[in-house]
Amino acid sequence: MENTFVELTGFNKLTVVKQLLPELKSNEVLTRMSKVGLCGTDLGMVYKGKLIDSPLTYPSGVGHEASGVVAKVGKDVTHLKPGDRVVMEPGNPCLACDMCYNSKYNVCDKATFHKDVVIYPGMLGKYYINKANFTYKLPDNVTDEEGAMMEPLAVAVHACRRAEIKFGCSVLITGAGPIGLLCLVAAKAMGATKIIVTDIKANRLVLAKKLGASNTLVVDSQGSQAKEDAKKVREELGLAPDITFECSGTTSGMTLALYATIPRGVVMVVGLLPAEITLPLGGALINELDIRGVYRFVDSFPLAIEMVAKGLVDINPLITHRFKFEEFQKAFDMFHTGQDGAIKCMISAPTS
Amino acid sequence: MENTFVELTGFNKLTVVKQLLPELKSNEVLTRMSKVGLCGTDLGMVYKGKLIDSPLTYPSGVGHEASGVVAKVGKDVTHLKPGDRVVMEPGNPCLACDMCYNSKYNVCDKATFHKDVVIYPGMLGKYYINKANFTYKLPDNVTDEEGAMMEPLAVAVHACRRAEIKFGCSVLITGAGPIGLLCLVAAKAMGATKIIVTDIKANRLVLAKKLGASNTLVVDSQGSQAKEDAKKVREELGLAPDITFECSGTTSGMTLALYATIPRGVVMVVGLLPAEITLPLGGALINELDIRGVYRFVDSFPLAIEMVAKGLVDINPLITHRFKFEEFQKAFDMFHTGQDGAIKCMISAPTS
Amino acid sequence: MENTFVELTGFNKLTVVKQLLPELKSNEVLTRMSKVGLCGTDLGMVYKGKLIDSPLTYPSGVGHEASGVVAKVGKDVTHLKPGDRVVMEPGNPCLACDMCYNSKYNVCDKATFHKDVVIYPGMLGKYYINKANFTYKLPDNVTDEEGAMMEPLAVAVHACRRAEIKFGCSVLITGAGPIGLLCLVAAKAMGATKIIVTDIKANRLVLAKKLGASNTLVVDSQGSQAKEDAKKVREELGLAPDITFECSGTTSGMTLALYATIPRGVVMVVGLLPAEITLPLGGALINELDIRGVYRFVDSFPLAIEMVAKGLVDINPLITHRFKFEEFQKAFDMFHTGQDGAIKCMISAPTS
Amino acid sequence: MENTFVELTGFNKLTVVKQLLPELKSNEVLTRMSKVGLCGTDLGMVYKGKLIDSPLTYPSGVGHEASGVVAKVGKDVTHLKPGDRVVMEPGNPCLACDMCYNSKYNVCDKATFHKDVVIYPGMLGKYYINKANFTYKLPDNVTDEEGAMMEPLAVAVHACRRAEIKFGCSVLITGAGPIGLLCLVAAKAMGATKIIVTDIKANRLVLAKKLGASNTLVVDSQGSQAKEDAKKVREELGLAPDITFECSGTTSGMTLALYATIPRGVVMVVGLLPAEITLPLGGALINELDIRGVYRFVDSFPLAIEMVAKGLVDINPLITHRFKFEEFQKAFDMFHTGQDGAIKCMISAPTS
Repeated sequence: MENTFVELTGFNKLTVVKQLLPELKSNEVLTRMSKVGLCGTDLGMVYKGKLIDSPLTYPSGVGHEASGVVAKVGKDVTHLKPGDRVVMEPGNPCLACDMCYNSKYNVCDKATFHKDVVIYPGMLGKYYINKANFTYKLPDNVTDEEGAMMEPLAVAVHACRRAEIKFGCSVLITGAGPIGLLCLVAAKAMGATKIIVTDIKANRLVLAKKLGASNTLVVDSQGSQAKEDAKKVREELGLAPDITFECSGTTSGMTLALYATIPRGVVMVVGLLPAEITLPLGGALINELDIRGVYRFVDSFPLAIEMVAKGLVDINPLITHRFKFEEFQKAFDMFHTGQDGAIKCMISAPTS
Repeated sequence: MENTFVELTGFNKLTVVKQLLPELKSNEVLTRMSKVGLCGTDLGMVYKGKLIDSPLTYPSGVGHEASGVVAKVGKDVTHLKPGDRVVMEPGNPCLACDMCYNSKYNVCDKATFHKDVVIYPGMLGKYYINKANFTYKLPDNVTDEEGAMMEPLAVAVHACRRAEIKFGCSVLITGAGPIGLLCLVAAKAMGATKIIVTDIKANRLVLAKKLGASNTLVVDSQGSQAKEDAKKVREELGLAPDITFECSGTTSGMTLALYATIPRGVVMVVGLLPAEITLPLGGALINELDIRGVYRFVDSFPLAIEMVAKGLVDINPLITHRFKFEEFQKAFDMFHTGQDGAIKCMISAPTS
Repeated sequence: MENTFVELTGFNKLTVVKQLLPELKSNEVLTRMSKVGLCGTDLGMVYKGKLIDSPLTYPSGVGHEASGVVAKVGKDVTHLKPGDRVVMEPGNPCLACDMCYNSKYNVCDKATFHKDVVIYPGMLGKYYINKANFTYKLPDNVTDEEGAMMEPLAVAVHACRRAEIKFGCSVLITGAGPIGLLCLVAAKAMGATKIIVTDIKANRLVLAKKLGASNTLVVDSQGSQAKEDAKKVREELGLAPDITFECSGTTSGMTLALYATIPRGVVMVVGLLPAEITLPLGGALINELDIRGVYRFVDSFPLAIEMVAKGLVDINPLITHRFKFEEFQKAFDMFHTGQDGAIKCMISAPTS
Repeated sequence: MENTFVELTGFNKLTVVKQLLPELKSNEVLTRMSKVGLCGTDLGMVYKGKLIDSPLTYPSGVGHEASGVVAKVGKDVTHLKPGDRVVMEPGNPCLACDMCYNSKYNVCDKATFHKDVVIYPGMLGKYYINKANFTYKLPDNVTDEEGAMMEPLAVAVHACRRAEIKFGCSVLITGAGPIGLLCLVAAKAMGATKIIVTDIKANRLVLAKKLGASNTLVVDSQGSQAKEDAKKVREELGLAPDITFECSGTTSGMTLALYATIPRGVVMVVGLLPAEITLPLGGALINELDIRGVYRFVDSFPLAIEMVAKGLVDINPLITHRFKFEEFQKAFDMFHTGQDGAIKCMISAPTS
């Protein structure tokens, strides 16, 4: 059987490729793809030649946020059958090390994310093969597009769990891009009752407000302005945030986080920070802040799916643009430039 | 009644002052001092004109690590009586805010540490007045000098508690100064079974080894050397440390901590970092590290005292130099220059 | 100024009493009462002569679930002023012991609940005096009746917090009385996504379903039936509950909890169990269950108020009967007999 | 190759059996046994016909506390080689379910403890085959007898970890049998600084004192005596215990635990309680006690081994009697009757 998918064959070179599918292993699932969303990681691969913080090797597949319909299952697979609508958790932890046996498979150092299974070929294509126990059935009332958002929502769910969100807590989210907005809806569903979202662009905050932020604030926390912004955050919110989700991946966002968060509070670093970063860390740590890294997710897809299925979050407003498979280059370019306020670009799988 | 104490009357100006003692309040204790230890904070006050990270106002007292004998107690004090040997916890939290009622009084923003009660006048003198519920009785088998070490040991105990040290865990300590060495003995008493200590000076590591470090390593983790040093730390220890106590207060120590600690591990920042610091934070947070600030202590004196009284730690080897009260200037200078390998300098209270 | 209130002057003897109000202390608040709800504890006092598990001394006031309007504040009170609508947290912890300073004031052994401040006189009257820092302002959109429900809702909030409810968890609630139903709405608001409620009476489960239970089940878990019922609970819910809230206060409810809860799960004992109880504890503990006691609440009123104010729970359906002050005896009797399906009986304060 | 081992062929019928060893699987290890200790579970099997709380099926092997020397390893085993001295963790969790992937493999409901791998044949024999990843190398300074104590020590380590023992906490241990005494040494090594041990027999407390108990107390907490005993426990210890390890498996031990433990404290139920038990649970739960079940262990062998190897515990005083393989019947009988104060009976493997 032949697969058709988009391949990154060199720096900023996306090409449609056709290739025979390998034989399905006993614990694998072959899926006919429906929808694929684009992510900042995809942009980094295409336009920077980097896979998160490592250099990329070509060729590489792209796309790791997707939904589809099961076409075929391996002989040991019992929880899925052809015709089931599904989403696929990318990544390939070893499942045999201490990390994997202690609910930390996202930091398994033998895991191959964006390799083998996931990225080459990626999910932006007609078919995709995934491990069965990382493939989840979608309830009927979750759409294909919502399904393709489960991966980034799982990141937000994982960040909220690692932040130990409790009912009634107050939250600051720095950066109103897709991950910031998903942290907003997830934090709200998981108990945060006071949430302020900041961004340097006022137009991105409109959606934050619509999605349920208690407050929004335009900031540009350079230098001494960060302390002023932190003060404003506390004034707007009525108190210092218990938890900050840094989702901007910038020095200014991180600086604001350090100044605004309550003593003994938690700063979750969800955005990918620069490799080297200069921060006023000394003062923040005197306030006994906890700064916690976040990387992908652990056992978070089922919760993300349940959140949508139970109507506890509405993630559809994040999907700002839709494209046919053939328009993939246009989708990448529009998302890359942020043109027309693109938040989440959704590409349909090839129709044939 | 007249008090005699050392006052910092201006930049690098230490003078002996005589002054009438105020009347004792109902919940206060007047103590005739025995021994006073010097601390890096004292050095910062004298030689940098800074109180931790704030500018200092003159005149100021000095000394906040001390033991003594109760001379008089306020009328509401029931757990102490004249003649009791005691140590005093410095600091003055409000005891009425949310932080104080939630076991976080060290970050109470109404607290006055190094002010009023503590530093002006400081503990380096003949008498000292402290709140009764922050004054602890010493068991007979704890010496006056050991008593004067309870304050820095309490810092180490608090750091270990915030690190959630568990039996069998592995630890890296960067920096073999007094706080690093006290973290070593406290971590060992509290369950760490594998501890490696690093420093840039080999001679400081001799004491670390004597105090029970499993391994020691001379490092100077500048630039790309940090990754190499991290590798060596893991090789020497036999595995990646679960917890790192950063006790050097330097960029290189912190960088080593970020590279060496196990994914999902904890970096406790015990040393005071520079106000601004440049770090490879992005990569560390992808490993889902937790970076936790530490500031002084909460309810830690009783544990520190018990640790010494039960013979679970021996802190006497840290006391490298002893001075009479009249030699206070010499003590400060020797500690400041690190001359003769000074780790902890102990000054006796005025004899009359 | 004269107060009018209901006093329990002897076994099952409720009388209206008039009495001069004492002078207001500096940290107290005098409240003109609005609504008072009846609680199982009130029933125990009147019809059993017991205060929870201790013998009662007469005379005693009654009523500890109430709302009102501030009439006067002590001179040190800054967060409230006359005219503010408020609710009062009953109980009088010492605020100076280790328990109080460690967020456990509900088990402060110097606390006087149902004594002095609270019960003699109780809140079922015209006026009530309470400590200011245990008196909370009601937002405009929370009604007087809802305000009078904050106390039992605070019990449910506290139980959920002690259960460490996490988003997506599954819950069993045994007993569909007021506390069981409040645990249901609180657990749902705090993240439980699958909740089954059991009771011996089918009619009580109608309200559970209306308030958002995923499933309900009529059970009578006597003897060997308990294992069968546990099996049914798991089948109905689709899995074993992570957390059980035992709200029936019965041996059969507790037995069902022990059999139904998932290994390593949590059984919160919210209902007051018999002084002596016979249970199949051995088997439950082999499954490493955690059985946790719950007593009243700690810092839970603000969360309960926020829950209602933000529209996250609707507690009005629990109020099944309303009475004028003069009808208090009828209210007690109806609640006592459970006549007409009485869940929560609400009594208005005296109009003059 | 032929194995020789003791088999329980019927009620109270122990016989030596010879049987061919099955072929070694790729992930298994064949061990030539050295020492085997007897456990209460063995007694229950022989003299009550029960395996913990279930009826036993015959024939069954016996013995699950043992050390030996590796004779042969399966082809995929890399961490062990013939000649290595080892201990074997009994039990056979599935390693593929949620429990297994979340560090709860001891409550995996597909696990086969005392079946297949473990009990039939048991470890009381010449050879034993075990899964390689549940077989641990012994350091040179841990003796064969100490090795045979790793299994019960692992139970104590697991209990202490589930109790979240922290440095400085106070502990009550009810019951000075092998498990109680091992909880004593483990709790001490893991940070408990005040430990009181109770038993109905004074002679058993002698060893408790020798092993480091701060206090011991003879009790017989029947009926109203339990409250008196609880008071004595608190007086002797100087405070209420933070954690109680119930190791007697009796109603009176459990009752004492409920009365003596501090409010919000933890009662770890390590001993196997009767299937049905009558307790004053209501009052205990008003004090917000946590009652936690303990069943075997999870990842506890490495810690138990390290504890002994580092000299943090001395478990040799528990070994009161030693027997040759041929004397196994005598060993069972002596342990059963508790004759001569038998605490731990150690049987040597067959010499040929």
